[in-house]
Amino acid sequence: MLTNDQLSQWDRENFFHPSTHLAQHARGESPSRIVTGGDGVFIEDRDGNRLLDGFAGLYCVNVGYGRTEIQDAIAAQARELAYYHAYVGHGTEASITLSKMVLDRAPSNMSKVYFGLGGSDANETNIKLVWYYNNILGRPEKKKIISRWRGYHGSGLMTGSLTGLAGFHKKFDLPLSQVKHTTAPDYFRRDDLNQTEAQFVAHCVSELEALIEREGADTIAAFIGEPVLGTGGLVPPPAGYWEAIQKVLKRHDILMIADEVVTGFGRLGTMFGSDHYGIEADIITIAKGLTSAYAPLSGSIISDKVWKVLEQGTDENGPIGHGWTYSAHPIGAAAGVANLNLIDSMDLVDNAGKMGAYFNKAMADAVGGHAHVGDVRGEGLLCAVEFVEDKSDRTFYDSSKKIGPQLAAALLKRNVIARAMPQGDIIGFAPPLCLSKTEADSIVLSMADSIKEVLG
Amino acid sequence: MLTNDQLSQWDRENFFHPSTHLAQHARGESPSRIVTGGDGVFIEDRDGNRLLDGFAGLYCVNVGYGRTEIQDAIAAQARELAYYHAYVGHGTEASITLSKMVLDRAPSNMSKVYFGLGGSDANETNIKLVWYYNNILGRPEKKKIISRWRGYHGSGLMTGSLTGLAGFHKKFDLPLSQVKHTTAPDYFRRDDLNQTEAQFVAHCVSELEALIEREGADTIAAFIGEPVLGTGGLVPPPAGYWEAIQKVLKRHDILMIADEVVTGFGRLGTMFGSDHYGIEADIITIAKGLTSAYAPLSGSIISDKVWKVLEQGTDENGPIGHGWTYSAHPIGAAAGVANLNLIDSMDLVDNAGKMGAYFNKAMADAVGGHAHVGDVRGEGLLCAVEFVEDKSDRTFYDSSKKIGPQLAAALLKRNVIARAMPQGDIIGFAPPLCLSKTEADSIVLSMADSIKEVLG
Repeated sequence: MLTNDQLSQWDRENFFHPSTHLAQHARGESPSRIVTGGDGVFIEDRDGNRLLDGFAGLYCVNVGYGRTEIQDAIAAQARELAYYHAYVGHGTEASITLSKMVLDRAPSNMSKVYFGLGGSDANETNIKLVWYYNNILGRPEKKKIISRWRGYHGSGLMTGSLTGLAGFHKKFDLPLSQVKHTTAPDYFRRDDLNQTEAQFVAHCVSELEALIEREGADTIAAFIGEPVLGTGGLVPPPAGYWEAIQKVLKRHDILMIADEVVTGFGRLGTMFGSDHYGIEADIITIAKGLTSAYAPLSGSIISDKVWKVLEQGTDENGPIGHGWTYSAHPIGAAAGVANLNLIDSMDLVDNAGKMGAYFNKAMADAVGGHAHVGDVRGEGLLCAVEFVEDKSDRTFYDSSKKIGPQLAAALLKRNVIARAMPQGDIIGFAPPLCLSKTEADSIVLSMADSIKEVLG
Repeated sequence: MLTNDQLSQWDRENFFHPSTHLAQHARGESPSRIVTGGDGVFIEDRDGNRLLDGFAGLYCVNVGYGRTEIQDAIAAQARELAYYHAYVGHGTEASITLSKMVLDRAPSNMSKVYFGLGGSDANETNIKLVWYYNNILGRPEKKKIISRWRGYHGSGLMTGSLTGLAGFHKKFDLPLSQVKHTTAPDYFRRDDLNQTEAQFVAHCVSELEALIEREGADTIAAFIGEPVLGTGGLVPPPAGYWEAIQKVLKRHDILMIADEVVTGFGRLGTMFGSDHYGIEADIITIAKGLTSAYAPLSGSIISDKVWKVLEQGTDENGPIGHGWTYSAHPIGAAAGVANLNLIDSMDLVDNAGKMGAYFNKAMADAVGGHAHVGDVRGEGLLCAVEFVEDKSDRTFYDSSKKIGPQLAAALLKRNVIARAMPQGDIIGFAPPLCLSKTEADSIVLSMADSIKEVLG
């Protein structure tokens, strides 16, 4: 094994890391970590640290690290056939089997699944298909996409536009003009503190209505949203939100894209977030939990309603002009099959619901009363703690104080990985779905200690 | 193992295949193929067919099928650590080692590599970085991208716009307005049959100059091109093309993106196509040959010149707002390390050059004199045969006659996979770089037989 120094030098000289301060990293001013292994909810690094990964990588290692069932499936697929393409009706036993397994688990109005690589490219596929859909239906003007501020849907040009977070737009000329943003369903951050949750939902609805009115419903193709806001702060919707929003969309014949990259395959204690909130999606985006990140694979699950139009489109125009070389890659498909089987055999959807309820309550009990904790919220195995300078009038800290990053660093000293979410002082947890009660308690204890260290 | 019938039913009911006639596939009207294994240049399917894959998947399985060195590396990485993210300075031994191996092989002006999943998302990254680059340099208007008709750069919204092929635009509202296309460097398809190759290059240059003049150089950020046109017809550039084009780009301070997804890592008999044609790129796109498709991985290799500005950008603005969850995925990185080592140990770059020259000459000798063969062309292990109805005045067949697809079907009957390229009757070959003389002869013989069967 290469020494740290050698690897570290190669790293700083050659490797362009995502979401990193490039100059500081190249100059060796910021920490790096070379990860070497993991088991269950723990990872290990080259320096001998063993860390409880309270964010499951990037909320994706849902079954936990080191699962031999998936390792063996990947190894076996590599030996049998690492790759053949899926164009023009080609497939493998793994990719076809996984397509059936996904549809067996998806809401009943779903018909087909297209496999991509990651969440960003899956949403890219979705927007292409939505445009194609309206062209086939003879509605060439109906193309704009409504997304929400604080939504996260990727970091490509179009998908980064769908994302409603400033850090993904700045200096990239985003959002593109085809994307319009509406109010984030973040009750804690409502402008009018006097609003009840029901009033806030009515406000979200009227803002959406106003946007549609302003742009013209005949120019709007789809609405995209995560069942629970993810990178935007791990924010469950206020009660009644999805029911009310969907009424508006149906009235204006606007397709609903449920981005279930984070929530799909169990994180909320249900197979899909759409099941949890009664969302009737036309397209569902999946990725992370599909393979628990053991191999790259994403998907676009297409409803009957949309699929029929895609079929009409190819009858009229020939083969669809869309595909990635690595669509439905056999290694990803094999990982997906083993992963979905493991989620079933380990009963992880159920554990996410029960352990999530326990973890969220324990967190609220332990830190909710702190003078600078403004909100403790979550659903299933998503949990966020949001900090404020003054609780009485919900004054936020100036971002230059870096309260969130300080808290994440304090947790890391205690060997717990959490994520300082962007746009706010928000500490997020999204541990593997196999989290145990002991491990949940340990995260909560470390969080309480860290808050005490940083904020007194 | 599941029976064909069961799998076939699941396939038609659930699986949305890329680049497929969706309705015919779902109705069971078009053939499907379930691929089960492969070795060297051959694949095998569920029905017992053994086929010589003359297109290496989608010109990506460069080392050939069934290489235990890569299978073992994937299995070992899956067991050690299938996944951890690369955000904020995180890495693994595999991803860091591969970053060094890529830079060791890249042109000397290259500085860093960002790892993505496939060629489309790598070009998406490139366009984002080019926009960021010009924003940091205070040139907010310098954003348009020039691509060529018949270029292929992906099938996303932006990357499909870069692609200059009608089948990828139709019904998708592409190209987006930020992309401008210029003349394809396809001498065989020149408008003026009287032009010499040098005159045609001058024509390409003047068309590019006119486009820049029309749009304004201060609105144009980059030019993207494949060293040899790929999906657009496997067309090597006319002599002197790249030298002349680069002079224009330099004069107008337009960045050069070399899309080496097809040509990178040996296909032309050189490590990169840029080496072959003296292209001095600012950014190089890599994918297919990086892992020989054993696992999804792509990359954007960034020059010193661009990297310095990205560093300045993060010093001024903080961490770069770009990343995929699966950037630098360990399984892909491990496959890449093993693959690049195998390319060296099997001396495949050299073989691609020598065997490519043999194969192209043998093909030209065998079929070039046929009355309906208009052009036999290639470079390294790329070879295309283009068909015409009348050779004397270069009349093309009407596409409804489906000459290309008929020829591909005739080859398939002879157990040889070739690709009927879009926009013309062009049969393309891009076999694994391990092709032997016997295998090359066998493809040529099958091609001659197929032409005789279809065209007499």
